[in-house]
Amino acid sequence: MQNVQPQDKSTSSASPLEKLVEALSGDMQHVNQAILKNMQADIDMIPQIAGYLIASGGKRLRPLLTLAATRIYDTQTPRCYGLAAAVEFIHTATLLHDDVVDESSERRGKKTANLVFGNQASVLVGDFLFSRAFQLMVADGSVDVLRILSDASAIISAGEVKQLAITGDLSSTVDDYIDVAQSKTAALFAAACEIGPVIADQDAEQANALRDYGHNLGIAFQIVDDVLDYSATQEKLGKTIGDDFAEGKMSLPVVLALESATENERTFWARTLTEKDRQDGDLQTAQDILHRTKSLERGMDMAQRYGRKALEALAPCPDTALTNMLRDIVEFTISRDF
Amino acid sequence: MQNVQPQDKSTSSASPLEKLVEALSGDMQHVNQAILKNMQADIDMIPQIAGYLIASGGKRLRPLLTLAATRIYDTQTPRCYGLAAAVEFIHTATLLHDDVVDESSERRGKKTANLVFGNQASVLVGDFLFSRAFQLMVADGSVDVLRILSDASAIISAGEVKQLAITGDLSSTVDDYIDVAQSKTAALFAAACEIGPVIADQDAEQANALRDYGHNLGIAFQIVDDVLDYSATQEKLGKTIGDDFAEGKMSLPVVLALESATENERTFWARTLTEKDRQDGDLQTAQDILHRTKSLERGMDMAQRYGRKALEALAPCPDTALTNMLRDIVEFTISRDF
Repeated sequence: MQNVQPQDKSTSSASPLEKLVEALSGDMQHVNQAILKNMQADIDMIPQIAGYLIASGGKRLRPLLTLAATRIYDTQTPRCYGLAAAVEFIHTATLLHDDVVDESSERRGKKTANLVFGNQASVLVGDFLFSRAFQLMVADGSVDVLRILSDASAIISAGEVKQLAITGDLSSTVDDYIDVAQSKTAALFAAACEIGPVIADQDAEQANALRDYGHNLGIAFQIVDDVLDYSATQEKLGKTIGDDFAEGKMSLPVVLALESATENERTFWARTLTEKDRQDGDLQTAQDILHRTKSLERGMDMAQRYGRKALEALAPCPDTALTNMLRDIVEFTISRDF
Repeated sequence: MQNVQPQDKSTSSASPLEKLVEALSGDMQHVNQAILKNMQADIDMIPQIAGYLIASGGKRLRPLLTLAATRIYDTQTPRCYGLAAAVEFIHTATLLHDDVVDESSERRGKKTANLVFGNQASVLVGDFLFSRAFQLMVADGSVDVLRILSDASAIISAGEVKQLAITGDLSSTVDDYIDVAQSKTAALFAAACEIGPVIADQDAEQANALRDYGHNLGIAFQIVDDVLDYSATQEKLGKTIGDDFAEGKMSLPVVLALESATENERTFWARTLTEKDRQDGDLQTAQDILHRTKSLERGMDMAQRYGRKALEALAPCPDTALTNMLRDIVEFTISRDF
């Protein structure tokens, strides 16, 4: 009895994400159990690698979205636990494969799994988690859910391929960027949200509303992530700063900066992004150009437009405390420090 | 009208595999159309890489098994087309990821996709094909089929992880080897066969019979493949000879040779497989040891035992020309040149 004072965990100092975690903590316990149980396998290497990434402080935002999108309806169904775990497994599998692909060295403030365990193991454990996600969906038995998440998975990988294909391509447009963001990020946000009303036996209007919410939130989330990659401090971001620059990614700030680039600047981007010939001080120069062209601010403006669309999408949904929390998540996303 | 003579394509000189291809050529046309159609995507890189591997002379044995296992029943259902394509996509995805993992340089007599297009693209296109396979299953709509193939996929990746985990581990046993072969190869053979009777609305006895057939054929197939890797000519094998040796794989011939290894031989395997410290002439030395210990012959004996189990498994199945062709495929597999 060391602490007898009642604690109000939902104080105003908690972030909207922390409040959502708190509101869904009972459900999340079940999801975490499903995650732990289903990443087990006879080969130690599987839970070891999966656990390394899953335990490494990820926010589990996507399964939280699935839970919230189920619980805004008047249902106590436990179906969302296994399916939220499936969503997290798909996300984890894409991270494992992304890190191999990107040759990243840090994620969530830790060395990436591919550096610790090798590319080979990361690819294969990603495949395992992806398969396990489908086993969880099969156990649930809804072909609608299977359709939503297999469609999302195909879109994600196609988006990753497109991102790879346009790497270092200075002729990429804002449309290309949005296309990639929709695919590689927003598709899983949308699917994670859409399965909520599907599980809760709601009609197409509700399913579409949640899907649109997730879709627009996902694009806003990706834009902010890409802005932070040029502007945050490493401590805050929890991953290497300037990763996108190092990989030659045609992320939104760069695409915007290219629209009004001087000849010198274009030569700079061609050398650093296309030819990947980089020298000390280049990241600083890139940041200076983004500053001059107001590309970070313009990126955040775009994120806010998608954020507003996400808020509008929720209009047909029941008016619950959780619905409000979903709204607050949008505000939180588009105001992330930069 | 250059050729007016009727051709008997099913001459006795054709191999059992060629005869099966001929018997199912009408169905295979539909499967090939489904494969071509479903590997299309907005990003050129996807059909380019998928097509590189899919068009590179693979035998399409697994979709052929699905077709045969459907058509031995009195059904004209077209459901097997999309599902056979799904089976081939899962197989192609694992090949793409395998080649990244193995750092192979040749498959089916051509450079591997990862060498031509890069590891990154191979991982991502593999993910795309895997997702597309599930989309094809969802379009079919059978949760039973989805269960069979998602279970197989999880087993395959776990088997690949185990294979990686025991690479160069001289304490691996024949049981470890069979466990890996069951997972990484036989699981998809078994699933490809099992979905036939499921599509054809047959009972569990038929489904189990075909599953057992595929399972045992798959193990026999993998054993023969591993024996050939130490004994075939490169021209016949269509891939690099000695790949398994170069990768330190604990394949059956090596595991058998280790059972009766002299101290010198054990030192040789430790240097070449565990430490991967290889010199010119080592592959020849390995082959000499396998010859002395009769490991290739003993491997083939094991393959033949699994082959007999595959034949026995077909006992409850209807007595059709295709059933006999499935039997001939077993004979063909366990008599592959070495």
